[in-house]
Amino acid sequence: MARNTQVTADHNPPPITRTLAEFVANHPSRGWSDAVDHEAHRTFFNWLGCAIGAAHHEAADAALRALAIMQPAPQATVLGRKERIDMAGAALINGITSHTFDFDDTHLKTIIHPAGPVASAALALAEVTGASGRAVIDSLVLGIDVACRVGNAMYPDHYDRGWHITGSTGMLGAAAACSRLLELDAEHTQMALGIAASTPVGLREQFGTMTKPFHPGAAARAGLLAALLAREGFTASKRALEAPRGFMQVASTKCDWNEITDELGSRFEISFNTYKPFACGIVIHPAIDACSQLRAAGVNADDVERIEIAVHSLVLELTGKKEPKDGLEAKFSVYHGCAAGLLFGHAGEGEFDDALVNRADVVAIRRKVVATVDPSIDEAEVRAVAVMKDGSRKAVHVEHAIGSLQRPLTDADLERKFSALVELVLGGAALRPLMDASWALESAHDVRALVRLAVPQA
Amino acid sequence: MARNTQVTADHNPPPITRTLAEFVANHPSRGWSDAVDHEAHRTFFNWLGCAIGAAHHEAADAALRALAIMQPAPQATVLGRKERIDMAGAALINGITSHTFDFDDTHLKTIIHPAGPVASAALALAEVTGASGRAVIDSLVLGIDVACRVGNAMYPDHYDRGWHITGSTGMLGAAAACSRLLELDAEHTQMALGIAASTPVGLREQFGTMTKPFHPGAAARAGLLAALLAREGFTASKRALEAPRGFMQVASTKCDWNEITDELGSRFEISFNTYKPFACGIVIHPAIDACSQLRAAGVNADDVERIEIAVHSLVLELTGKKEPKDGLEAKFSVYHGCAAGLLFGHAGEGEFDDALVNRADVVAIRRKVVATVDPSIDEAEVRAVAVMKDGSRKAVHVEHAIGSLQRPLTDADLERKFSALVELVLGGAALRPLMDASWALESAHDVRALVRLAVPQA
Repeated sequence: MARNTQVTADHNPPPITRTLAEFVANHPSRGWSDAVDHEAHRTFFNWLGCAIGAAHHEAADAALRALAIMQPAPQATVLGRKERIDMAGAALINGITSHTFDFDDTHLKTIIHPAGPVASAALALAEVTGASGRAVIDSLVLGIDVACRVGNAMYPDHYDRGWHITGSTGMLGAAAACSRLLELDAEHTQMALGIAASTPVGLREQFGTMTKPFHPGAAARAGLLAALLAREGFTASKRALEAPRGFMQVASTKCDWNEITDELGSRFEISFNTYKPFACGIVIHPAIDACSQLRAAGVNADDVERIEIAVHSLVLELTGKKEPKDGLEAKFSVYHGCAAGLLFGHAGEGEFDDALVNRADVVAIRRKVVATVDPSIDEAEVRAVAVMKDGSRKAVHVEHAIGSLQRPLTDADLERKFSALVELVLGGAALRPLMDASWALESAHDVRALVRLAVPQA
Repeated sequence: MARNTQVTADHNPPPITRTLAEFVANHPSRGWSDAVDHEAHRTFFNWLGCAIGAAHHEAADAALRALAIMQPAPQATVLGRKERIDMAGAALINGITSHTFDFDDTHLKTIIHPAGPVASAALALAEVTGASGRAVIDSLVLGIDVACRVGNAMYPDHYDRGWHITGSTGMLGAAAACSRLLELDAEHTQMALGIAASTPVGLREQFGTMTKPFHPGAAARAGLLAALLAREGFTASKRALEAPRGFMQVASTKCDWNEITDELGSRFEISFNTYKPFACGIVIHPAIDACSQLRAAGVNADDVERIEIAVHSLVLELTGKKEPKDGLEAKFSVYHGCAAGLLFGHAGEGEFDDALVNRADVVAIRRKVVATVDPSIDEAEVRAVAVMKDGSRKAVHVEHAIGSLQRPLTDADLERKFSALVELVLGGAALRPLMDASWALESAHDVRALVRLAVPQA
């Protein structure tokens, strides 16, 4: 009853829940640099494309059928689809689809995919309340700051324990974003964070199943509900994050409080967000990038005798599958990644299609890839050499793959990625108006104008 | 990326998720003794009374207002109220109300309050599908077995870490019960348990706030959603409970798998469920019981000089408040508990009313209570002596309080408790028909007949 064996408990933590609540409630609108605001638009843009792109995945179909038995009110949009459901359901589904292709954003310091929980909750709520685009961008910056700062404080211990950190900090980011959109004061925001702290989501054990993308969706829904409850006077512990039996100490031995308070309001974690250029695990990205560069340098697949790549040991450990049978397995095959890079110059979701993975020319090229581990090579690095049939060689050295913080995707890159994802769902005519609306989100009087462009037109 | 510092990981756990799924899917209806089946009815009956009794608490009001913005379909009943909402909402609200007074059931080995998550989810689903009472009772027995067995395996480490074990095993119990009601096969039930494993609910830090009763409600809702998703083909890890990065190893260092598999299908944890006779922490129950026994033995409060009680040290540590200012504080005052026992012979929610706590006669009696710690006294025990103004003394020794496994409440006791809770909400005329319907639940063709009796009549 009065027992507590948690020997590492910190009994005098700083008032983290309060500090974050005051920040979320009181930080000025657009109280950051142009660069931060632009990164927020890039984050939103990338999230929107991923969510629409996976709109008809079987995970989305299954989740929509499960929610249908609740007879949800048609109050919010399922991105990329005609169905409308209640806003908690929309937060759930859009959170699922945005992460379904494992193609979304990454806060590299924590491996959090921050937009999924935060943007999914914020947009669903904003659609119902008719919030402005400015308010949505503000909520996104602040919500992501909360999730990633809590992540920074607990990473890596929390992740190593087995928590899927995207969902197990995402409910806090979503609660923060929704509190901001609801214009809750610091007291009520504190309660929202407190309620959300009791509903963390996500286990790494679920990787490879539909429950992985369920995590950001469920976190979005949990944070939204927490904010709505707080607005109505629902109470929680004022120290729900930091107390000895609060969320962070319960879920992580490492709780570095300074990660939460240092430069709060001047350094924004969304600045460190990155966007995947390739629809697979980040460990293969340097190799795909290198082979794309070989292709751009004039290497023709037909003339190749073999491709030699020198990689970090993790690459073969995690993605050493030589003969992938389908698209999912191909995402764990550096050989397929190299083939896609050399043949197509990119590796979007389409290049992990089951049929394409088994196409003769693709199979032939991936069998020509020879990967060796080189202890001098970093995780982010790769050295690739194309040995041609005529005996000539072409070498490429990638120190940091495209999409990394060092070599971020340009806005034009993001548009190409968005287009490839969205065109198949909404058609080519929908692309330009939707992309323009997304880039101009901060000046939208009402987000519903954008949302109307994000569904199939009648 | 491939890092795992969890040195205590068990990399070869038995297939717990599969074992429980097969049990839930395949165990025969009423495949247990009459005693178990009767205990299931007592569990349901006690839960129903608690939920109706707190129907108008401000926590329920706030939660209903928060859900109202989702415009829920009127498909399921909020117990004790006229509002109807979608079934996930009903699971949430009924789970909240059933635990609001801290007056519900207790599986003493784990301190799990098992009915809240499990019955709240099961009844909401059963109402929508028109399930039979037999099916609901079956789902309750099996769902509670799942939650409490997982609890047995992780207790006390999991609880000591700070998890509110009612919510952090309750989502599994709710998923199991709903899977059974949906007649899912073992494969789909396994997925439901897997999905639910990613959404544990509850921190002990929330005790004393509305988020404490939110835990069983949110667990009920999470388990219900998991079962609905699984039915539609949503996938999860097949080892979501036991894997090194599965729920149990992530949330507890102690994972005693035998607690889950031993006597599965022959020993039912619902047999060890108990029901609180008094609406306060269980540590004061022996003292209240003793003073009630003094009253029954003819001790009149007016004639008492003082009441001497010898108690375990935890009693004063947790409930040593001498002058409680309101009902909530009175729940942490052994002095008030003794006054209630001596004056009224019981201590239901009404005896923790703010006004009553400050009534002159109540204050006068509690000031006559002298409590001392006696190292020879057990937690479950108390020795009480009434010293009368005429110098005579009357002594009582309570080894196990009423409501314990050793001295369980009788069905008649449960009816008195139920009546005190429900009469204020539904009126006296509603009591007998509703109690009769609850005791006869197993023979109900459709649970909706009972549910119609559990709301205010037009």
